Amino acid sequence: MAERARVLIDCNDERGLVYRISKVFYDYELNIDSNREFVDKEAHKFFMRSVVTGEFDEKALQRDLKAAVPPEANVRVITPSRKKIVILATKESHALGDILIRHADGELEADIEAVIANREVLRDLVERFDIPFVYIPADGLEREEHEAKVLAELEKYAFDYMVLAKYMRILTPSFVSHYPGRIINIHHSFLPAFVGANPYKQAYERGVKIIGATAHFVTDDLDEGPIIAQDVIPVNHRFDWKDMQRAGRDVEKIVLSRALNLVLNDRVFIHGNKTIVF
Amino acid sequence: MAERARVLIDCNDERGLVYRISKVFYDYELNIDSNREFVDKEAHKFFMRSVVTGEFDEKALQRDLKAAVPPEANVRVITPSRKKIVILATKESHALGDILIRHADGELEADIEAVIANREVLRDLVERFDIPFVYIPADGLEREEHEAKVLAELEKYAFDYMVLAKYMRILTPSFVSHYPGRIINIHHSFLPAFVGANPYKQAYERGVKIIGATAHFVTDDLDEGPIIAQDVIPVNHRFDWKDMQRAGRDVEKIVLSRALNLVLNDRVFIHGNKTIVF
Amino acid sequence: MAERARVLIDCNDERGLVYRISKVFYDYELNIDSNREFVDKEAHKFFMRSVVTGEFDEKALQRDLKAAVPPEANVRVITPSRKKIVILATKESHALGDILIRHADGELEADIEAVIANREVLRDLVERFDIPFVYIPADGLEREEHEAKVLAELEKYAFDYMVLAKYMRILTPSFVSHYPGRIINIHHSFLPAFVGANPYKQAYERGVKIIGATAHFVTDDLDEGPIIAQDVIPVNHRFDWKDMQRAGRDVEKIVLSRALNLVLNDRVFIHGNKTIVF
Amino acid sequence: MAERARVLIDCNDERGLVYRISKVFYDYELNIDSNREFVDKEAHKFFMRSVVTGEFDEKALQRDLKAAVPPEANVRVITPSRKKIVILATKESHALGDILIRHADGELEADIEAVIANREVLRDLVERFDIPFVYIPADGLEREEHEAKVLAELEKYAFDYMVLAKYMRILTPSFVSHYPGRIINIHHSFLPAFVGANPYKQAYERGVKIIGATAHFVTDDLDEGPIIAQDVIPVNHRFDWKDMQRAGRDVEKIVLSRALNLVLNDRVFIHGNKTIVF
Repeated sequence: MAERARVLIDCNDERGLVYRISKVFYDYELNIDSNREFVDKEAHKFFMRSVVTGEFDEKALQRDLKAAVPPEANVRVITPSRKKIVILATKESHALGDILIRHADGELEADIEAVIANREVLRDLVERFDIPFVYIPADGLEREEHEAKVLAELEKYAFDYMVLAKYMRILTPSFVSHYPGRIINIHHSFLPAFVGANPYKQAYERGVKIIGATAHFVTDDLDEGPIIAQDVIPVNHRFDWKDMQRAGRDVEKIVLSRALNLVLNDRVFIHGNKTIVF
Repeated sequence: MAERARVLIDCNDERGLVYRISKVFYDYELNIDSNREFVDKEAHKFFMRSVVTGEFDEKALQRDLKAAVPPEANVRVITPSRKKIVILATKESHALGDILIRHADGELEADIEAVIANREVLRDLVERFDIPFVYIPADGLEREEHEAKVLAELEKYAFDYMVLAKYMRILTPSFVSHYPGRIINIHHSFLPAFVGANPYKQAYERGVKIIGATAHFVTDDLDEGPIIAQDVIPVNHRFDWKDMQRAGRDVEKIVLSRALNLVLNDRVFIHGNKTIVF
Repeated sequence: MAERARVLIDCNDERGLVYRISKVFYDYELNIDSNREFVDKEAHKFFMRSVVTGEFDEKALQRDLKAAVPPEANVRVITPSRKKIVILATKESHALGDILIRHADGELEADIEAVIANREVLRDLVERFDIPFVYIPADGLEREEHEAKVLAELEKYAFDYMVLAKYMRILTPSFVSHYPGRIINIHHSFLPAFVGANPYKQAYERGVKIIGATAHFVTDDLDEGPIIAQDVIPVNHRFDWKDMQRAGRDVEKIVLSRALNLVLNDRVFIHGNKTIVF
Repeated sequence: MAERARVLIDCNDERGLVYRISKVFYDYELNIDSNREFVDKEAHKFFMRSVVTGEFDEKALQRDLKAAVPPEANVRVITPSRKKIVILATKESHALGDILIRHADGELEADIEAVIANREVLRDLVERFDIPFVYIPADGLEREEHEAKVLAELEKYAFDYMVLAKYMRILTPSFVSHYPGRIINIHHSFLPAFVGANPYKQAYERGVKIIGATAHFVTDDLDEGPIIAQDVIPVNHRFDWKDMQRAGRDVEKIVLSRALNLVLNDRVFIHGNKTIVF
């Protein structure tokens, strides 16, 4: 018997959904601690996240909720349990380090199963926290060969989400397709946007006054998946491009941690190429 | 027959509220466009704001919702209609001016019935927008005498909210008691807080690095009513106290407009000395 | 005899510049109230802004400063006098309105000579403030024909800066070349950037979480001139594209007013395609 | 011979200071990479920070600069060398952890000599980074007795700054007087301010919409020393007081790291109870 659950439902919108769902809660004698719904009127989609307490059989609740909503609905009854994550990294430590500290602090609602990196440089930092560090070099390998090794390693872990903490390699659609909606990435972003090599240098040359970071789910379309969180940090003419990079790292780590926290709290729905964040 | 309404309900929390409320919506064949609930678990209070569409008799809906919830519940079925506001001001134009421009722009979801001021200086600005300006001088009057004149003037208008756009007079509890939960004020705020005369000078002498503004409902307790919105603006050592005041004015006008917008959209519940902002 | 001046100097960097410039100030018995220098080490460029007080002949000071620095240097000795601006607009009132209110309030360090618009809709707002409104319709005209009419109108005014307050027409390089470094524009900006029609709709479809605004000098390269100021405002999934546009307008008006204030205070150097903002 | 220095000078303002100082730089054939001055006109104080490069004898430069300015002037010629810090902590790891990670990353411009704590709980985290952790329990000791032990420990280290990374003990004026202008503290701050036990609970009950953090130098006057940096983070009605505390921790660590960075870069002058931050 569970005592508390996050219930997430998304489906095509139709009249009576809240009524039918709340009727199930009522029949189970559940208390609704919080509840948020959103209807995308253009797409006719319904999203709902409830936190319920009481005493209930989790599977029965899931089944009865499923029966109350349209057949194509996603119904998730998530009872408290720490989630598990794996982290992919390369050589920069700022985003990774913030997650490690939050984890050590007990603040992260997840266990870190492993950090996998294509460079060795972060081993020391990771192992200081007694977290497995797996080095899978990419040198001399085709992208697919390297990804095959990473995939083989990933199979050893049961994880909910994969966090790309400045993993500097482009993932193939094939790799991404193994973990739909489960890979979270952080990348710098600028106004205006800069493509090509060294965007910080471009941003410096353009004289931008703010530097941003975007955390998003990874899809086939590189850096173009559903955005979870964004923020910016002010810069000025006294910043050279390395200072801009340093400022960028600060906002990257803040935004990634914020996004990860939202995802681990089951507050994020993926809706096409957008997110609903409750 | 109405076609669209904002439904706001707050009452003691008990099991089944969402179910019973959504059943009423269902029986009326209403669509729920958006819906947010919040339960204050400490205070055992339930808050809900729904936007519903369909075709319905507004009074009947109100009556049936009232029947579905505990007897002490506040149930408001608000159908689209422009709200009306009156503004009290003194001599500063920044907060008032922003509201006037938004009004002229059609962006404000309210009509401005009148601006009442204890100084004459803002008459020109207000009348440029063809809005009645009423000058009620306070010189030589006891506070109660002046307030009696203001109250007499206010009785001429049917208004939903009174906005204190830098009205530099302290209101008596007796005055405030005429408009519970309907007076919105903006005032500067600082970290740390400064009491007494010229807080900007104190803030300058303290060397603060940010200056804030707080929009809140007015209660008997001066500047201590439920907070609707807050924000800050960065300052530095190059700001003298007049520069700080100028920066403060910018954040004041932004925060007041934001708060007013939330209130006019019926997004704000007063809950003791706090607000729930949906 | 002047009593106060802003001195702005930019030139190729070389040793002794501060010494030679401050020697001139010293010889003139001037007090330096504030002073900022910046050296772009890559470009070998020197920038300096000083505020000096004393009693001095403005022209002589200018001449002696010029003699103290490399021949190609720009030396500006700016004594207090209200600057003059003209505003170009189309139909949106938010950016224009904020400037009008600040002007009415005495807060803007400039006189508004005229508002020129290619639509008539803002006439009422502008004339409420007793500012000349000039309607120059573009319908049926070639771009060059319309610009010729605007240029002819502009010739009537002695102005320091031209502010594009949501002027929705693209200026030709020929037009821009009349006012190098004197045209200030505000435009929305997004992370990522969106090109083409209705960027707000694109931003909505992309599910961005922040919306930005960029104020910049106008150069031949549309929307790509030196950036003066930037900021962002948070949005979320509950914003439809019109809400995003509304949020965008708020940040646009704030950023344009901030940039205009910096420019009117002679705090902004143009340096290639960047700005130095002291 | 040094090749690069930060030169910091503060003294009573008088005419010719910049001239005389820059003459020294000129005579030493130094390049001025950046230069900022500020004059507090009310207090008649002059502040200047220059970064100079060239080839020079550090002591001679210091001496000649001293000769060029009023006798009471503080003249600091700081040549590149990593600064040293000690950290005092109690049990919270967020502020400490961020500094440790930045240190491990090579981003902090300082070496951490030791972490001294009145609880044992942070030992594990600190020692993971191979930094000495010194546990000095306070139980059963008078405040002065405990401080005497801490002072004795501190004497073992040559450090530039002491960072209170959520050190939950009040320092006596006597302790503070050993390290004037060298102790940096971070504390939460609120609008309005709350005194007494559990400010987060008070902030929760007051329904604040933002939570702040203030980094400042420690003086006799608890939490009232010169402010170095401040920032805020938004909260809302869904935050219980523990959520507010968590949000507060995030802004605390960001603000402390920012302030520490400014101090380590010699960008901060203490000016009475204020700071000048260049």
